[in-house]
Amino acid sequence: MALLPTDSINTIGVIGLGAIGASWSAWFLARGLRIRGTDSDPARGRATENFIRAAWPALTDIGQANGDVADALKRFSFHESVDECVAGCDFVQENAPERRELKAELLARIDAALPADRVIASSTSGFGVSALAAGMTHPGRLVVGHPFNPPHLIPLVEVVGGGATTPDAIKSALAFYERIGKKPVHVRKEVAGHLANRLQAALWREAVHLVAEGAASVADIDAVIAHGPGLRWAQMGPHLIFHLAGGEGGMRHFIDHLGPPIQSWWDTLGTPQLTPQTAAALIEGVNQEIAGRSYADLVQERDAKLIKTLQALA
Amino acid sequence: MALLPTDSINTIGVIGLGAIGASWSAWFLARGLRIRGTDSDPARGRATENFIRAAWPALTDIGQANGDVADALKRFSFHESVDECVAGCDFVQENAPERRELKAELLARIDAALPADRVIASSTSGFGVSALAAGMTHPGRLVVGHPFNPPHLIPLVEVVGGGATTPDAIKSALAFYERIGKKPVHVRKEVAGHLANRLQAALWREAVHLVAEGAASVADIDAVIAHGPGLRWAQMGPHLIFHLAGGEGGMRHFIDHLGPPIQSWWDTLGTPQLTPQTAAALIEGVNQEIAGRSYADLVQERDAKLIKTLQALA
Repeated sequence: MALLPTDSINTIGVIGLGAIGASWSAWFLARGLRIRGTDSDPARGRATENFIRAAWPALTDIGQANGDVADALKRFSFHESVDECVAGCDFVQENAPERRELKAELLARIDAALPADRVIASSTSGFGVSALAAGMTHPGRLVVGHPFNPPHLIPLVEVVGGGATTPDAIKSALAFYERIGKKPVHVRKEVAGHLANRLQAALWREAVHLVAEGAASVADIDAVIAHGPGLRWAQMGPHLIFHLAGGEGGMRHFIDHLGPPIQSWWDTLGTPQLTPQTAAALIEGVNQEIAGRSYADLVQERDAKLIKTLQALA
Repeated sequence: MALLPTDSINTIGVIGLGAIGASWSAWFLARGLRIRGTDSDPARGRATENFIRAAWPALTDIGQANGDVADALKRFSFHESVDECVAGCDFVQENAPERRELKAELLARIDAALPADRVIASSTSGFGVSALAAGMTHPGRLVVGHPFNPPHLIPLVEVVGGGATTPDAIKSALAFYERIGKKPVHVRKEVAGHLANRLQAALWREAVHLVAEGAASVADIDAVIAHGPGLRWAQMGPHLIFHLAGGEGGMRHFIDHLGPPIQSWWDTLGTPQLTPQTAAALIEGVNQEIAGRSYADLVQERDAKLIKTLQALA
């Protein structure tokens, strides 16, 4: 069956309105789409509206939202029943808690109620499509559409197929996310943690190793990243950075000349475990780093800087 | 012997005026210091002046340089002899090529000509102090002062002691870099690659693994970083990011709830080798990513974005 053309996707079903679902809703609404939301907790409808109101100034600042949030919220509706919610949708974004059976059961219900030519994307960070599609009649239209938190500010969406997923469903999801201003990336194999979380985990593993070995404090590692390589990673990824570090000779020159030292560092990278002692050292180190600053202040600082960075790179 | 007080450091000897030495010179000059430079190639004096002229607009844009570059260049002098160059200096930054014997011999000469109460910092990325101090009469004042390229734009400086280095020399180098607006970090143990290059290498190892395994293209990995986690790493390091991801419960809550999945990803991270086949795949992938854009255009784009990011975060 041919899928609904990307251009015809206007109404999004947002299933699960926790932090991820609410943030997705804010982005979809900012991009002019209509949202039908549902959650097992009926209070989440109102909570999502409040989240969207709070997120609207940031979305406006980064040039993604236009007009008044009250007008935009007319395009948001909350539905107590999953079946009723998805029946009128062109695309579904599922954001239930990360429990396999719960997600699989929910996806089966969505599958039964949604016309068969519409794509279903799961925000799952921990599961592959193959683990979630068991109860679906039309598993070919299920993809992972994993955002990077928070979805209303960070552009990345990882799109992963697997099992029965059809190439058309992947193509459609990529085209839809692209159309609404996200930066979708096709993950070509089901790997644990997709791409971004694996790359983050790899960086953090060596960070934890260096702290555990006494080479640096938690705060020092954070300073090294934020005042060093982190300043570049917002502009371009590691391969392009190294290509340019190779000068006119590019990546070939880089690998010829810096490959051997990098390989020698690789050979000494640590493989720490998150033991109770290591966890205690990390918690203690972060407490020294924040030096009494409140959670609310730090979150505000983080988000303000993120918005400025997005504006600078726009 | 008491070291020269940090406040009295006014004249910097910049030994070796390749890319790193020229860039250090631009920063020192922008911060109002006097520079005495030397290089075995006498043409490097003029080349450094040209580099500084080219870098001045960026240094002005990020609020670090004041006034006219022609006036600033009156504080730069080139000297053909190392002995004559360092005799009048308050602090020496050594930036010779990464060859141990060459550096050790040069550091011994600097040590013999520089008054004994002045710190010598080596920009070495590959060696520890212990490997470089053999010929010095006063090895207690030698530290690593490793910048992150390019030193005139990236704030990080890794300060490492080792062997005979005195605590005072480390303290003095940290205080000096701090005073002139850098972000110095004390590396508490001599580890191969210091901190930043190890952390970069850890991220890149998993990037190379994911490409080698066929999970993603080179361009896709770069997009994942630049449109995902890279956007946050310019604002704060990985520990503080995860602390905030833990909500009000902070790092403890984060480790309790996300520690197990992260540990499971750690257990599956790759350990690729830079074989000829892998190198070829990376080179081919970067060429697809740049799609014919010239080296000069990419460098210009990178630097323009870096300057905007630094302005946004100032």
